Amino acid sequence: MKVENIELYYLSMPEILDVADGSQDALIVKVEAGGLAGWGECEASPLTSIANYICPKSHSAANPIKRSVIDKNINNLDDIKKIINEVKQKSLMIAQTPHTFSGIEVALLDLLAKKENCPIYSLLGDKKTTPKIAYASVLFGKTPEETFKIGKSIKEKKFKAIKFGWQNFGLDIQLDEQHLIAAREGIGKDLDLMIDVGAIWGTNIDKAQKRLNIFNNANITWLEEPFYSDAFYEYSKLHSLTNLPLAGGESCHSVESAKNMIRFGKVKFIQIDAGIAGGIIAGKEICNFAEENNIQYVNHTFTSHLQLSASMQPYANSKQSFFAEFPQQLKSLAWDLTDNHIKLDEDGKINIPEDIGHGMKINLNALEKYKVDVEIFVNKEKIF
Amino acid sequence: MKVENIELYYLSMPEILDVADGSQDALIVKVEAGGLAGWGECEASPLTSIANYICPKSHSAANPIKRSVIDKNINNLDDIKKIINEVKQKSLMIAQTPHTFSGIEVALLDLLAKKENCPIYSLLGDKKTTPKIAYASVLFGKTPEETFKIGKSIKEKKFKAIKFGWQNFGLDIQLDEQHLIAAREGIGKDLDLMIDVGAIWGTNIDKAQKRLNIFNNANITWLEEPFYSDAFYEYSKLHSLTNLPLAGGESCHSVESAKNMIRFGKVKFIQIDAGIAGGIIAGKEICNFAEENNIQYVNHTFTSHLQLSASMQPYANSKQSFFAEFPQQLKSLAWDLTDNHIKLDEDGKINIPEDIGHGMKINLNALEKYKVDVEIFVNKEKIF
Repeated sequence: MKVENIELYYLSMPEILDVADGSQDALIVKVEAGGLAGWGECEASPLTSIANYICPKSHSAANPIKRSVIDKNINNLDDIKKIINEVKQKSLMIAQTPHTFSGIEVALLDLLAKKENCPIYSLLGDKKTTPKIAYASVLFGKTPEETFKIGKSIKEKKFKAIKFGWQNFGLDIQLDEQHLIAAREGIGKDLDLMIDVGAIWGTNIDKAQKRLNIFNNANITWLEEPFYSDAFYEYSKLHSLTNLPLAGGESCHSVESAKNMIRFGKVKFIQIDAGIAGGIIAGKEICNFAEENNIQYVNHTFTSHLQLSASMQPYANSKQSFFAEFPQQLKSLAWDLTDNHIKLDEDGKINIPEDIGHGMKINLNALEKYKVDVEIFVNKEKIF
Repeated sequence: MKVENIELYYLSMPEILDVADGSQDALIVKVEAGGLAGWGECEASPLTSIANYICPKSHSAANPIKRSVIDKNINNLDDIKKIINEVKQKSLMIAQTPHTFSGIEVALLDLLAKKENCPIYSLLGDKKTTPKIAYASVLFGKTPEETFKIGKSIKEKKFKAIKFGWQNFGLDIQLDEQHLIAAREGIGKDLDLMIDVGAIWGTNIDKAQKRLNIFNNANITWLEEPFYSDAFYEYSKLHSLTNLPLAGGESCHSVESAKNMIRFGKVKFIQIDAGIAGGIIAGKEICNFAEENNIQYVNHTFTSHLQLSASMQPYANSKQSFFAEFPQQLKSLAWDLTDNHIKLDEDGKINIPEDIGHGMKINLNALEKYKVDVEIFVNKEKIF
């Protein structure tokens, strides 16, 4: 069968707040072939990625993604790999491409898995799955008191790990310390505590190093994104100076860039977003490389449970990589998008559905309810 | 004064051919403030970058670029650096951002230079300029005979260096050898000969290594882009196995990514596109880092002379970095865009204009002649 049609759905909350919450809008992909439909989600600025998908060609290495997908064969995994290679060659010089294509790749795998009547992870060679320790992924509170309360409530929900992030953490060392103390007090001494600073220090190693004591006092499991995503030198330098376990990689947009983060950035945890890195197959390759180097693979996701399931497929049955990000403050859009949801078990773990595809059922009503209408005309011709 | 208005002009040839010729379309930026206008050019898929400029916000790290530029102060270089930082923070999670913003940064510098009545390079600290050895940048011929003829004609134009690239070079070693022999015969033994393979070997070191002899026999000055732009490990491995001088970096989209190419990719020539890397100020920082590490900075450009001038500003007066890319097969659009042009001198060198700004005068008729009309509606509201 051949890829007959692709639909892109731009969804949004009525209001977008100025906070680091990636669940406020979404770009959902439906791929159709042979009477089947596969679904995926891009981690992307939706309008930018829509343009990337349908833009007029600029030259032989700057083509619209559409050109490399529509009408292509999709009978087996090799066909999908051929599409991946074609997109990489033909749209190499459009920087947005990995963000846009990743969601399409997830949808292609979902569709192929439906044809084969199996889960995506089994298409990729895993016979079963291993539940992961879910870390509740939340933003810091606006005050240390609020951070304490969030931590306490997460502990009460039986989580074994929590990650606080963003919200201007990193700008004021005294306030940072209060937040860390509050976080640790809120969750107690046994839970894993991760901290995500969202690249706030840019390339400034000193600002990170100054906080070594407060991180050590809070007994953190990792420090995430201290620097810009490609500041490998600064990552490795901070690691060698402090021995802090570092995590990063959510902006890796290729297998190579993730390998760089491991080889040169010296992270201990490589965090891959299946909606950015190129898709699930790229994630699987990164996972293999990471584990050969004794680095843990961790999913990155801050949107819907469709994306949560997709992000966990590459290490579905890994025992070596045992954490999974589990966003806890999703906007209604991201929650409503699927009819079913991944749930925390009694041991504080989550697992991907063992159903066919990625196992998430799309709520078609949500596609209507949150729809953003986009029309693009080029020389008066409607191209989207 | 404040940035009052930005216009984006999408220009295109009537027909876009399926060749690696980046001069077939263009995205031109006009920035207006205090009665002045500055001009820049993005190296980008125009429609994708237009969307990136005006897209609805997704979250605090995925804003339209417009938000960080319009109404901002632009009285001095620090104001432009503030805008650069704001764009980096607020649009961090839209991968297209560096491509889009680079042209805006060039236009901001052109405007500021017009206010100060000086060339851009002097805003950045250079008091004068040093002409560069121009390498004629051309595509391989379709046959070795054609490659020979191109080489001969370039030599007759008094060039001292030439770079052949793309056109399926790298797929068939025997044909590759014939092209290299023809190229060297065409230009004679004294000219510098560079080869650009456009990442054709992906991450396959073996395919590159197998060609060591034919490269050595042709006495090449550098081998450009043997692998994907972020395949630093493969770059450094090839260098250590063959001692071939490598060049790369055109896809570096940040100061950090260029530093990675130098530190980890072990290139001898770092090629920076002012329309991709973040602009001229980013280029200047990369040039300083490169030269401190005994690496030559080289401009990358394959479009108009506006972009050629912009790409040469970061190393305007460098003596250590003495090559400049000089595209020789521009489509009429890229040629017509400026009223004036940079010319090869009797010594085979080129220099940037010593006029104010980047010194290139925009031909307003070309903006009309090649204009692509774009309209974008979001929820029925016209946003572009």
